[in-house]
Amino acid sequence: MKLVRFGPAGHERPGIVDADGAIRDVSSLVPDFGPETISPALKATLERADIAALPAAPEGVRIGAPVRRIGHFIAIGLNYADHAAETGAAIPKEPIVFSKAPSCLSGPNDDVLMPKGSVKLDWEVELAIVIGERCDYVSREDALSKVFGYALCNDVSEREYQAERGGQWIKGKSAPTFGPLGPWIVTADQVPDPQNLSMFLDVNGERAQTGSTATMIFTCAEIVSYLSEFMVLEPGDVITTGTPPGVGLGMKPPRFLKVGDTMHLGIEGLGEQRQTVIAR
Amino acid sequence: MKLVRFGPAGHERPGIVDADGAIRDVSSLVPDFGPETISPALKATLERADIAALPAAPEGVRIGAPVRRIGHFIAIGLNYADHAAETGAAIPKEPIVFSKAPSCLSGPNDDVLMPKGSVKLDWEVELAIVIGERCDYVSREDALSKVFGYALCNDVSEREYQAERGGQWIKGKSAPTFGPLGPWIVTADQVPDPQNLSMFLDVNGERAQTGSTATMIFTCAEIVSYLSEFMVLEPGDVITTGTPPGVGLGMKPPRFLKVGDTMHLGIEGLGEQRQTVIAR
Repeated sequence: MKLVRFGPAGHERPGIVDADGAIRDVSSLVPDFGPETISPALKATLERADIAALPAAPEGVRIGAPVRRIGHFIAIGLNYADHAAETGAAIPKEPIVFSKAPSCLSGPNDDVLMPKGSVKLDWEVELAIVIGERCDYVSREDALSKVFGYALCNDVSEREYQAERGGQWIKGKSAPTFGPLGPWIVTADQVPDPQNLSMFLDVNGERAQTGSTATMIFTCAEIVSYLSEFMVLEPGDVITTGTPPGVGLGMKPPRFLKVGDTMHLGIEGLGEQRQTVIAR
Repeated sequence: MKLVRFGPAGHERPGIVDADGAIRDVSSLVPDFGPETISPALKATLERADIAALPAAPEGVRIGAPVRRIGHFIAIGLNYADHAAETGAAIPKEPIVFSKAPSCLSGPNDDVLMPKGSVKLDWEVELAIVIGERCDYVSREDALSKVFGYALCNDVSEREYQAERGGQWIKGKSAPTFGPLGPWIVTADQVPDPQNLSMFLDVNGERAQTGSTATMIFTCAEIVSYLSEFMVLEPGDVITTGTPPGVGLGMKPPRFLKVGDTMHLGIEGLGEQRQTVIAR
């Protein structure tokens, strides 16, 4: 099942995607998708719904992020061996954990706002995990059973803010629109192997990133289990799991986004995103 | 005005502290204190209330964190010159920004849970800022007008997780109960100068930290303004602003908390906290 939110920014309604790819409005069944509602019970409710009887969303409607808000927007750094190499970093021995401000969340095709004075704006196609149940010291074996679903994420990054402004990556990961998520959350049962999904990202129509979740250093199960040793994960938390090679910072010479540039990215089975960079 | 939440964990009710120091239940006026309700309008509603007509909370009732949840729990590192020196770090040129998992929030006098296998559990008395209005490129001059109030925070830290487990401090700042907050939020109008508040922290009855917000490297106004360049701050976001000298890591030799140890901390006008360390 694919969960989606549609409508004007800040006024989205929850929906699911039917067999024909049309969006059906489920706001009669659940007020919205977010930390308060994401759960196995929500999935059961939606599975029981008579899809054909639900109103269809207007065609061409804007797609928002598939959650109203994120309780904790966690990110894993340098989680693809080739990406670590391109940035000149060593292969991490343990997952590198940082976070993005929850206010950076945006729709999959919304414009990306370049911060004032930004000179090192960069892209990162990533597989995001949406947590469905509380995780507190969860084993690797049990970890994937706590996952509600998966989504496509662009972990938009400002490299100067991230690395040259006094440490801790959060500073370069958190500006408004730095977290395009969606178009959908695909429930975990529809993603039999999250470690075998191809992914890409194009900038201005040219391929920049090509990869597969098969080359992650730490798998989704390992990430969820590992994080749950250091913090409690809650339903609706989103963990974006790192990016394959091909980011602007890794190019020789490095290449960063300018106003007017476009990004087009996708992960097998999780849909695609298209963003244009605009000035603030 | 002092905002407080009282009752069993997970079932707290909102209250305010009356002139005699008793807690009055305001749940008839506002469902709870949190990101959805914290605003200048909430303050106005509470100020209009007929305090004497509100029911009193039972004496000796448990005090919870003064917000139900935190949208974004931001923290500033090494923000006191003497503390930076004791940890061997250079004085930061710009604020060091990291975050704590929102799930680490706990009541001011709740037990602090030692994570499994933890060997470097440490304390940090801190002044926390509670944001009252959206901040997006806010000037220093305007920054304090966006602050709803201030609260006492113990930025509980696991130093091995923070610094020896693969970078990014969030890993050592986020375990459950690592964020005791309260007892109250004191509204900003009652804190005429947030840069002149004395603070202390005792471990097992012995003074460990003594300080004043007067020695912050970056003031509250500077922190709010600075953060708003990198991320949008939202109502109910909490920023804990760094700790004065006297943490366990800075002692010679370093001294860390053990099960059974007690902490007692306070900031002038913002109340006190008492925690006992217990095993998981």
